[in-house]
Amino acid sequence: MLSVSRMWAHRHLLGIEELTVDDIRLVLDAANSILDRPEISKSEDRKSGLLRGRTVINLFLEPSTRTRTSFELAGKRLGADVVNIGAATSSVTKGETLLDTVRTLDAMDTHVIVLRHPGSGAAHFVATRTRASVVNAGDGAHEHPTQALLDALILKRKKGCIEGLVVAICGDVLHSRVARSNALLLGKMGAEVRLCGPRTMMPPSPAALGTTVRSFEHMQDAVAGADAIIMLRIQTERLEGVSMATTREYSRVYGLGPRLLDFAKPDAIVMHPGPVQRGVELDPSVADGPRSVILEQVAAGVAVRMAVLDLVTRARKETPSQAVS
Amino acid sequence: MLSVSRMWAHRHLLGIEELTVDDIRLVLDAANSILDRPEISKSEDRKSGLLRGRTVINLFLEPSTRTRTSFELAGKRLGADVVNIGAATSSVTKGETLLDTVRTLDAMDTHVIVLRHPGSGAAHFVATRTRASVVNAGDGAHEHPTQALLDALILKRKKGCIEGLVVAICGDVLHSRVARSNALLLGKMGAEVRLCGPRTMMPPSPAALGTTVRSFEHMQDAVAGADAIIMLRIQTERLEGVSMATTREYSRVYGLGPRLLDFAKPDAIVMHPGPVQRGVELDPSVADGPRSVILEQVAAGVAVRMAVLDLVTRARKETPSQAVS
Amino acid sequence: MLSVSRMWAHRHLLGIEELTVDDIRLVLDAANSILDRPEISKSEDRKSGLLRGRTVINLFLEPSTRTRTSFELAGKRLGADVVNIGAATSSVTKGETLLDTVRTLDAMDTHVIVLRHPGSGAAHFVATRTRASVVNAGDGAHEHPTQALLDALILKRKKGCIEGLVVAICGDVLHSRVARSNALLLGKMGAEVRLCGPRTMMPPSPAALGTTVRSFEHMQDAVAGADAIIMLRIQTERLEGVSMATTREYSRVYGLGPRLLDFAKPDAIVMHPGPVQRGVELDPSVADGPRSVILEQVAAGVAVRMAVLDLVTRARKETPSQAVS
Repeated sequence: MLSVSRMWAHRHLLGIEELTVDDIRLVLDAANSILDRPEISKSEDRKSGLLRGRTVINLFLEPSTRTRTSFELAGKRLGADVVNIGAATSSVTKGETLLDTVRTLDAMDTHVIVLRHPGSGAAHFVATRTRASVVNAGDGAHEHPTQALLDALILKRKKGCIEGLVVAICGDVLHSRVARSNALLLGKMGAEVRLCGPRTMMPPSPAALGTTVRSFEHMQDAVAGADAIIMLRIQTERLEGVSMATTREYSRVYGLGPRLLDFAKPDAIVMHPGPVQRGVELDPSVADGPRSVILEQVAAGVAVRMAVLDLVTRARKETPSQAVS
Repeated sequence: MLSVSRMWAHRHLLGIEELTVDDIRLVLDAANSILDRPEISKSEDRKSGLLRGRTVINLFLEPSTRTRTSFELAGKRLGADVVNIGAATSSVTKGETLLDTVRTLDAMDTHVIVLRHPGSGAAHFVATRTRASVVNAGDGAHEHPTQALLDALILKRKKGCIEGLVVAICGDVLHSRVARSNALLLGKMGAEVRLCGPRTMMPPSPAALGTTVRSFEHMQDAVAGADAIIMLRIQTERLEGVSMATTREYSRVYGLGPRLLDFAKPDAIVMHPGPVQRGVELDPSVADGPRSVILEQVAAGVAVRMAVLDLVTRARKETPSQAVS
Repeated sequence: MLSVSRMWAHRHLLGIEELTVDDIRLVLDAANSILDRPEISKSEDRKSGLLRGRTVINLFLEPSTRTRTSFELAGKRLGADVVNIGAATSSVTKGETLLDTVRTLDAMDTHVIVLRHPGSGAAHFVATRTRASVVNAGDGAHEHPTQALLDALILKRKKGCIEGLVVAICGDVLHSRVARSNALLLGKMGAEVRLCGPRTMMPPSPAALGTTVRSFEHMQDAVAGADAIIMLRIQTERLEGVSMATTREYSRVYGLGPRLLDFAKPDAIVMHPGPVQRGVELDPSVADGPRSVILEQVAAGVAVRMAVLDLVTRARKETPSQAVS
């Protein structure tokens, strides 16, 4: 990870939108090394880690176990002091603004604030107003960049190269920050991106996400010949607006079962950001079948977050005004 | 702890039921050493600890401070990275199954999952489906093995030997995992176990817990000549089903006060898993009196959990397929 | 910090009331060194810290993010194992008494219990009944000593000397532990303390807090010629009792805006314990203006808490009965 650090120039990770193709490659290479050299994260010496003496705060103002735990482990495995702040215990309940919360944490000499927030743009808003590095762990329906990066890491490891791959992203695309970050990343890396879901859950102009991004009306067309299928979690309370009375009806039209999967390439992989709702967006036989890489995504997530925490703190360290020997 | 590790063969600690007499002795000896050599847990060097570089996740899907804190301190004092996941913040609220939660944590390269769950059998269910070691921190009305082990450690330290002791376990025996694990352990170790409580709170066949386990109708008979009395916490909402209108009435018949204690041996000790309800199951003069070893139980608990975390991770390490230099 | 430790004799920090002028100077000097030598808290070697191998428990039985996080970071930066226990997850919900909770934590070999509790006197009550050091992080309307110490550190750094300063403390003085601890500290250190707020929110005998403490009816008089103004957070639900229908009306009479601030000295600083309610007790232009030192207070808070954790554990260590080599 050391040799590549000169090329990384971002003090924050706010979204895929801000990253170049080289930036993305850099994160993926760093995370790939971590996955391949487990001694980095597991060795008994790692407490002399890259983030030793640094403070990482997980500020999660939306419920999350999976992503919070992934960042917490990533920080701890790099030797950082990690502090969790959740919505329930937060001063936000005392009427404090997000900006005051972030500035307060900043004043406590925090190096990285990992922020999950229900409002789109929240991470950008605070990033320009803090000395700490801000890592966006999901902001409203906007971006979830580490999810897209871990999905890309899986694609790279399973398929060798992202360019030229055909990837279908299916479900409630419109409201999904996972879909948005993935489409942006895959478009930048030269993959063909196919979006599919109920009409009211599709973005109005998919091409805005990338020149290789297109919408499909039927799942069969979206999945045909795909190298990978990213199934999104559907929020059942949103189905009422789609005139689909039940999750069963949704599952029949937009769920991924073995027959639909047969239209994809024979070695196509099935991805999901979790937690999976079996029988809704994924048939149990697919979720737990040989094509599913869902648990590998989880492992890749910790590696990607370790790489990101390392890179953004390096960028900060090398800023002249904050140079530290 | 090193010299005995060859004899321990369990990757999980699911219940007392699965342990042999030698297994129990092994845990008690290891925990006893920790209590006697406080430098293991307190020295400034302990961060070069036995679990350095290992991840312990406290997955507590029922409220608990006492047991969770005890495991958290045990893990941290061995140098592990400890992550807490509670019911409130868990993805379980997003409809994720317990198995998915555990598999996700497993994929994050977790070494030990400490599980508290309201369902009996939950720890067994997940143990066969994960690479991590599972330590049962209480599953429904089934088992709470570390509580029984810490109680045994106190008995051993106070009485020299568990075999031949007379131990009364009193209260809501039927619904108590503490009573169940204790009866199983004490039976295996050759103690005479006497169960006593309201008829609707007694197990139908006490002998199934061990050949030396018997039920008693009257507290005076259960306590007569006892070396130790384990008083259980009564859940007051259960009293309605026992046709006892008030905790006061329960206390009069099944609570332990100084007069009842006089029937026990002169050096009998009084134990309670905590938190104590003074004036209900225990008279304040007994709870805080010279026979009470309740706070010593707490100290023993951290030592037992350190021993258990060490042993289960050793067992994992020494499995050939996961051998690490 | 080493050279001064001989002079510190307190195993607990319960309130400003118990401290001498020398004690206060000692904490301020220690904290000042920490702020000036950031390598103490930031160096990569700090994990060989002063509290390495020690356990600090944050027992927060009232909601708090700011103070809890400040203590958590202070403990971690000194190398301690820090465990958080909150009201929601606490056994207190199982009917356990505060004393039992504290004694249980004590039995787990805890070195410092940082206690926030809604009851005035809670910290004193438990301190005499535990082997651990108790640090009061706010008890009802009684004291919040680390807040007063951090405010004093800011005054000392900004003004050079506390003696002779004129400090106005404004708002709901009666119910504020921040006001009480600050008035006590500033009185001891020889500052002139002016209290001002709605009549029903003023203490009956201000002189009881110190011979230099006086009440003022009008904000303009309290602020006139002041070196520093400490604005308290107003709990809007208390305004009904003051016959002020709205926060707007409160703001007009007792809020600090630029015109009122003009009556203070030209270099007067504005302080607030946070979180700030802009437009209520502080005008936004003042809260975020050049006189505001609110974020510096936050930074000072971590330093003061590091100094306090270090001093109370040293005092404990040097008590002969618990001498450790």
